[in-house]
Amino acid sequence: MDKINRIIARIDDLDLAVMEKAQKKLDFLTKPQGSLGKLEDLAKHICGIRGKLVLELKNKVIFTFAGDHGIAEEGVSAFPQEVTSQMVYNFLAGGAGVNVLAKHAGARVIVADLGVKSRLKAKSKKLKIKKIDFGTKNFAKEKAMTREQAVSAIEAGIEIFEEERENGIDITGIGEMGIANTTSASAIAAVITGESVKNITGRGTGINDKALEHKIKVIEQALFLHQPDKKDALDILSKVGGYEIAGLAGVILAAAANKVPVVIDGFISTATALIAYILEPKTARYMIAAHASVEIGHRAMLKYLNLEPLLDLNLRLGEGTGAALAISLAESGVKIMNEMASFESAGVSEKSG
Amino acid sequence: MDKINRIIARIDDLDLAVMEKAQKKLDFLTKPQGSLGKLEDLAKHICGIRGKLVLELKNKVIFTFAGDHGIAEEGVSAFPQEVTSQMVYNFLAGGAGVNVLAKHAGARVIVADLGVKSRLKAKSKKLKIKKIDFGTKNFAKEKAMTREQAVSAIEAGIEIFEEERENGIDITGIGEMGIANTTSASAIAAVITGESVKNITGRGTGINDKALEHKIKVIEQALFLHQPDKKDALDILSKVGGYEIAGLAGVILAAAANKVPVVIDGFISTATALIAYILEPKTARYMIAAHASVEIGHRAMLKYLNLEPLLDLNLRLGEGTGAALAISLAESGVKIMNEMASFESAGVSEKSG
Repeated sequence: MDKINRIIARIDDLDLAVMEKAQKKLDFLTKPQGSLGKLEDLAKHICGIRGKLVLELKNKVIFTFAGDHGIAEEGVSAFPQEVTSQMVYNFLAGGAGVNVLAKHAGARVIVADLGVKSRLKAKSKKLKIKKIDFGTKNFAKEKAMTREQAVSAIEAGIEIFEEERENGIDITGIGEMGIANTTSASAIAAVITGESVKNITGRGTGINDKALEHKIKVIEQALFLHQPDKKDALDILSKVGGYEIAGLAGVILAAAANKVPVVIDGFISTATALIAYILEPKTARYMIAAHASVEIGHRAMLKYLNLEPLLDLNLRLGEGTGAALAISLAESGVKIMNEMASFESAGVSEKSG
Repeated sequence: MDKINRIIARIDDLDLAVMEKAQKKLDFLTKPQGSLGKLEDLAKHICGIRGKLVLELKNKVIFTFAGDHGIAEEGVSAFPQEVTSQMVYNFLAGGAGVNVLAKHAGARVIVADLGVKSRLKAKSKKLKIKKIDFGTKNFAKEKAMTREQAVSAIEAGIEIFEEERENGIDITGIGEMGIANTTSASAIAAVITGESVKNITGRGTGINDKALEHKIKVIEQALFLHQPDKKDALDILSKVGGYEIAGLAGVILAAAANKVPVVIDGFISTATALIAYILEPKTARYMIAAHASVEIGHRAMLKYLNLEPLLDLNLRLGEGTGAALAISLAESGVKIMNEMASFESAGVSEKSG
């Protein structure tokens, strides 16, 4: 817990003076003021986070964490549980959606096993193994993990970020893989936002009406059984969380402490963001919401965090796919600020009257 | 007019069989079916347009056309008229918004003078000079151009596309520059969509309330004076159009005839799309709407064309800036279709039940 407390103590406010400077720089470029909308907002926000006039986003890193979920036993997912580990191998081979979109955005993907059920064979150093356990317990029947395990998973996320920071990180995104993890994410979201389980639970990878009804019931009963304390992130994680979700909350804390913007992907990543927010509300200032997921309940979670999604492309894959697209948009905003000519340098007349 | 008729005769339907093949290819990739939403739609749409399973979008081209508008005399813009030519030089020097965003997307920008008021000094072959006249006439008082000039401008756009096609074009975007051209675009949109001038006229580069009221009045009076025929694109162009708007309609026709997807930028580009649609409704099938502009009236125009905007980033710059961002999204869709592993190749289990 010391590691978590130390990193939280380092999380600062945004640098408003730098944001003002960024705004001035943007206002003298050859375009009507504000006419590049959210691209300009992104540039300004990123400067405020980094505490300097950012010249480029050279190192773009997406953390994709995997973990298995005991709740899969309850038949809440359309895919079998072995898909979690199979997809980890797919990430390592570069064949998954996040690999393709990260490459398009010029970002690295860092894959980590926080709690996959099987013992993964990493052929390369590309897989970071920080396994806390071989999957969570079935939270329909017992706590998903111990409080100590929740702490360890968050700390593992902090460690992974700090290790990768040695290779440079100017902006980061988070993504996840874990069969049945929308069930955990919905439970977390219901506890923290106060929304009903029904309003916050969707079809995940694509379950039918009957399975959805069952999924809602499973979550409702689990919340009744465990009564998680909405103000205690570790209590929520231990009762209904997941290792990859806890680990990514650690990444958010570490990103904020290191003044690195963190792009939140979809539904499950936003549940992670809620956990980070409960641990330290200032983290929200470092977040950029990539997109509005198809998964119902996502907008309520973003609203709770006071975040506006950049994209709305009917995505519901996770892995960090939406984060990759948003990172490219963020980079385009930074390029606008730095590469466009000013009215003066280009000899263009300014607005009259 | 022969050139226009010949190109229209070449515009075909989309290839539905290829779109079905693309869908099948997408459905076997390692992700829940449809979970990459609009990226998958884009890939499929582009295959249907190109008439083949597209493997890459290598040559990405944005056509940014410039023209001046006599209606600027009426005080409808916040910027002085010389900005049109100044911005053309800025495009050629690579300092404008569209240059930065096109570079980010890996796209070329082709700049053309269709009707700038001054005689431009092109230091390089980068500027295509197809000047129909030194700006349009003030359509508050007389017709903007002759019917013959409207035809010449459309044909010039077709020629520019055909010339550039020799360097390869897999996807294209359109953008524009012309002080006071939102006034022309609003007039065109009001005629074609049937919306009231008030509902379709916005602040352009940023005029105040009083100037907006004046702009609306100018357009209303001009439409009353000229009574353009909503079914006759050449009549509309000649009475209230612009040379860059007409030229870009030619680009749309040529793109459709050559099976090239054409990404429509913002408000003025969408007015151009309306003109192309009146000339040949099939052109709409080749269009991708980049974004929803801040400019009011834009959504009504997109609705008329039955297009859904990909992005909503509060953009209102034009030039092709939104098109550049959307081209990158389209490319990411094509990459998803081609670079992701299939369930079989990656050894990932498929959905159960």
